[in-house]
Amino acid sequence: MINFRTDLALERRDIYRKANNIANEVDGLETQEENVGENIMVTRVKVLNEKGEQAIGKKKGNYITIDIKNIKIAGEEDIQNASEAVTKELKTLIASLVGEKDDILVVGLGNLYVTPDALGPKVIQDIDITRHLLTYMPDVLDKDTRPVSAVSPGVLGTTGIETLEILKGIVDNIHPKLLLVIDALASRSIERISSTVQIADTGIIPGAGVGNKRKELTIETLGVPVIAIGVPTVVEAATIAADSLDLLIQKLQQEAKSNDFLNQLQEEDKYEMIKQVLAPEDYNFIVTPKEIDGLIENMSSVVARGINFATQK
Amino acid sequence: MINFRTDLALERRDIYRKANNIANEVDGLETQEENVGENIMVTRVKVLNEKGEQAIGKKKGNYITIDIKNIKIAGEEDIQNASEAVTKELKTLIASLVGEKDDILVVGLGNLYVTPDALGPKVIQDIDITRHLLTYMPDVLDKDTRPVSAVSPGVLGTTGIETLEILKGIVDNIHPKLLLVIDALASRSIERISSTVQIADTGIIPGAGVGNKRKELTIETLGVPVIAIGVPTVVEAATIAADSLDLLIQKLQQEAKSNDFLNQLQEEDKYEMIKQVLAPEDYNFIVTPKEIDGLIENMSSVVARGINFATQK
Amino acid sequence: MINFRTDLALERRDIYRKANNIANEVDGLETQEENVGENIMVTRVKVLNEKGEQAIGKKKGNYITIDIKNIKIAGEEDIQNASEAVTKELKTLIASLVGEKDDILVVGLGNLYVTPDALGPKVIQDIDITRHLLTYMPDVLDKDTRPVSAVSPGVLGTTGIETLEILKGIVDNIHPKLLLVIDALASRSIERISSTVQIADTGIIPGAGVGNKRKELTIETLGVPVIAIGVPTVVEAATIAADSLDLLIQKLQQEAKSNDFLNQLQEEDKYEMIKQVLAPEDYNFIVTPKEIDGLIENMSSVVARGINFATQK
Amino acid sequence: MINFRTDLALERRDIYRKANNIANEVDGLETQEENVGENIMVTRVKVLNEKGEQAIGKKKGNYITIDIKNIKIAGEEDIQNASEAVTKELKTLIASLVGEKDDILVVGLGNLYVTPDALGPKVIQDIDITRHLLTYMPDVLDKDTRPVSAVSPGVLGTTGIETLEILKGIVDNIHPKLLLVIDALASRSIERISSTVQIADTGIIPGAGVGNKRKELTIETLGVPVIAIGVPTVVEAATIAADSLDLLIQKLQQEAKSNDFLNQLQEEDKYEMIKQVLAPEDYNFIVTPKEIDGLIENMSSVVARGINFATQK
Repeated sequence: MINFRTDLALERRDIYRKANNIANEVDGLETQEENVGENIMVTRVKVLNEKGEQAIGKKKGNYITIDIKNIKIAGEEDIQNASEAVTKELKTLIASLVGEKDDILVVGLGNLYVTPDALGPKVIQDIDITRHLLTYMPDVLDKDTRPVSAVSPGVLGTTGIETLEILKGIVDNIHPKLLLVIDALASRSIERISSTVQIADTGIIPGAGVGNKRKELTIETLGVPVIAIGVPTVVEAATIAADSLDLLIQKLQQEAKSNDFLNQLQEEDKYEMIKQVLAPEDYNFIVTPKEIDGLIENMSSVVARGINFATQK
Repeated sequence: MINFRTDLALERRDIYRKANNIANEVDGLETQEENVGENIMVTRVKVLNEKGEQAIGKKKGNYITIDIKNIKIAGEEDIQNASEAVTKELKTLIASLVGEKDDILVVGLGNLYVTPDALGPKVIQDIDITRHLLTYMPDVLDKDTRPVSAVSPGVLGTTGIETLEILKGIVDNIHPKLLLVIDALASRSIERISSTVQIADTGIIPGAGVGNKRKELTIETLGVPVIAIGVPTVVEAATIAADSLDLLIQKLQQEAKSNDFLNQLQEEDKYEMIKQVLAPEDYNFIVTPKEIDGLIENMSSVVARGINFATQK
Repeated sequence: MINFRTDLALERRDIYRKANNIANEVDGLETQEENVGENIMVTRVKVLNEKGEQAIGKKKGNYITIDIKNIKIAGEEDIQNASEAVTKELKTLIASLVGEKDDILVVGLGNLYVTPDALGPKVIQDIDITRHLLTYMPDVLDKDTRPVSAVSPGVLGTTGIETLEILKGIVDNIHPKLLLVIDALASRSIERISSTVQIADTGIIPGAGVGNKRKELTIETLGVPVIAIGVPTVVEAATIAADSLDLLIQKLQQEAKSNDFLNQLQEEDKYEMIKQVLAPEDYNFIVTPKEIDGLIENMSSVVARGINFATQK
Repeated sequence: MINFRTDLALERRDIYRKANNIANEVDGLETQEENVGENIMVTRVKVLNEKGEQAIGKKKGNYITIDIKNIKIAGEEDIQNASEAVTKELKTLIASLVGEKDDILVVGLGNLYVTPDALGPKVIQDIDITRHLLTYMPDVLDKDTRPVSAVSPGVLGTTGIETLEILKGIVDNIHPKLLLVIDALASRSIERISSTVQIADTGIIPGAGVGNKRKELTIETLGVPVIAIGVPTVVEAATIAADSLDLLIQKLQQEAKSNDFLNQLQEEDKYEMIKQVLAPEDYNFIVTPKEIDGLIENMSSVVARGINFATQK
């Protein structure tokens, strides 16, 4: 299989089409695009069957990508618009899986103390929690309020416990009907860093975005459906380097200045060579905008509001 | 029972003795004091039986108070000395409950975003975690390493889930043999704020220190022994006010300027009157040194190091 | 003079009236009240002359207090309303002192790492800065944009430099026409903590609110007018204690159960006695709501937005 | 001149030698290496004259590089050793410029809210400040104590004021005899991120490391000598990409599979092409280890301790 180096189904589809010179849709996928206002583009990729699964390495299900332009300089209004797009897509998925008053547990994956991995815990801070109020002071709430709870389970490196183990315990004790799991992802495109939200109804593999794959969080492992809400916050440094080489070779070919060796090189993965540049073995090098702290604040607001309005009313 | 307004067994004992004019030991208690160097005093209060339980409202068991002078201006060496005192007491308690290589889960109660309640989560950041390394890369560790894991479960107000429900789930899934639970406490004395550690082998009621009592975390509720490590970070504002009144009345009595009404008032709890001063109903007012942020950093280091050296070797 | 233990002119006026049994206005003051919507009350105290100055220990000038109800549970709309009240008052004061396009320097006093003292530096983070853009990229701005710059000079304890020395140097180098200086204050009333803004056109004495008086920042010391924007974030612990005693004595008097000693005590300041309760000499003990971190976030937004809309257009 | 894309004199020297096939020392430079223990290497590059200045684009003066291995997993002892190496070099430079009790102002450049740019403000938090104590309570200090003060002036983007304007004002008001200025740098090598300290006696250009060059801070602009203490925290993303291309072309040449076009390409700067990959115009993309938050904490401790021991005694 292709080494996609991205968690976004949409990017994987594009890479697969390019690698296989497919002009139209990939067999096993179905894609639909929608512009929302001037600055927001929603793309819905559906993996229909095993063919689609094999093509892009993603499970059968729905993958909705919301691309937001200029989130860097987003004002209050842009954040509101973006969060409304998240609410709309999320609401449809939630309604397809559980009832209107069914208990939802929101899970913020990641490490609060590692900036590009802090999105999940930051979103949790802003989730409107109702589960305890319904138990202890139901009178303060509207009678149709859905019970919502939220946890930040931490990461294996700081807890010593697999996220799945922690969540399995909580799910078995408090019996939510649905999990919304937020995580930081890796994308292929630098433009998507902290300006894209992917919503998927197929669960999630924690830490995939930052290079440490863990046990998957899915209906199979947890017993309840899992909607994943991911935001790319990094591009792997090796991806940038490899993309530069691709560009060089393409340019040489266009100008008829390539040669057999280069042509062949393009077919291969250049990872081995690039690792010589990115030497220090024990680090995960990432590419990120210098402004990542502020961008993550903005995207946390977008996702938290998106969830708050999708879970109630 | 007396309204002690403190979580420290030692302070409760002192208040009980004073209220009942007891010159020596309270029936049902056993107390031992030890000076460690110039700046550290260790007091071990043992609740021996039901009489002791009724006197001070604390379960049968051991309550060790480590008072540290001048932690505010503590340098590296003072923090090290204080942490060694914590290690020594903790080590003895741990050895009395589990074997040398038995699995320990460290739990940091509290809310990272509320300064006087942030101690628990801050300690967790500095705990040496080994459980996952023993599973995934045992070769990097000494063969006698004890598996240690750590979680910050959050508080009911931000998760919507009782701490007991979260911990019960985790304990049932990962089966530690012992829990070390860290929490912020309330003390009666302003001098003890962030300069005292209480270690108890009887478990804990989360949030007691900051006015929101929750379900207890004990061997009865969790199925494994629970050592509580508490640090006073606040004094209730009403406590300060009540203590001022006491002092006034005492002074009047000494100078023979009191009267019957005042003499009687002293017997009562002045809480109702004081609540008129501390009016806004929906706040918890606390008294704290302005320097609380820095003090909590220092005490986090003391507790985290104390635990790290007590759990290994 | 009375020991007011508050930086708010309005509270001083009330204490002065009560202490001197004045039913109407204090000689030398002029006061005007206005309700703004349901939750906001604006009180404008004007110190007219030396008599007013002597009465409440505040310089001749305008002191506007904006009290906001329920800021603790403030949503986006409440914060917006409160900030609009700040904008309106500030705009009038600014227009009375400088021209529409005159250069303004916003100064955030306080220590970012001490929660109740962090308001000033936090506001600075959210100020819309234009001075450098007008120099380096004037085309991106509206042609009527006013040059606004902002600094957080730190506090004497962490810089070793008087705030006045730092600001004098900056003012002499960049020549603003007006300073807006934000600081945390002490109030007498616990209800006003982080729910009141005082705007004054008479400058400020940094650190007065947290017990460390420094050299004043005024037109006399800096050479340009100084508008002070203060938010009470603490009540001194001794204030709470003293107020409790007052209440007790009042109650005794009402019930005819007082005596000569008590009657006399009420006339005196009880500070000396209270200091026995609040023993540790080297701390500043304060009373604060446990939720102070969140309250300061809300008030930072109110003040920053209030300033941003008052300085432009 | 070569586009070095690094602020380190040592790296510039190496690049210059390679580009010009110089086996030994560059004309106009003098270099000396020293191993300190197992994990620390000190390299002292001296720019002797104009030839040296032109070769590496750095002013005449001393550039000392301290490379620390494995700072990522540094314990207390490693941080102490590294800080001692910093102290030793700094002490010599300080003694060459000012007297033992001459006033020093420490300046932390950068933006606290942008992780890779936060080093300067973080170091300032840990500097031992004595200037105000010598004024207000001289008795608490040793009589040989040097007056040390410290400021974090912020960055142009958040203050609207050139750092030089702020510092000029402060220097003219408080008259220090020497400035120690801390800043984040860019390096060429990914291994040096947050594991190298460069100390130079020639001043600094703020923001050079993160892509925004500002007015220089030197004896010429400020009137007092300026020692710069820089730590690389980022590598520009374009550097990584360009280095990957270099490596590819070298490899092709070695295997005799290159061609004229490629050979020529290597001579040029590949920046234009690489910018096509790193498209979004308004971001500064950087390469950084995912663990940058923790690394910056460690290096802040190294630099702050290094300064504290170099300025006193």
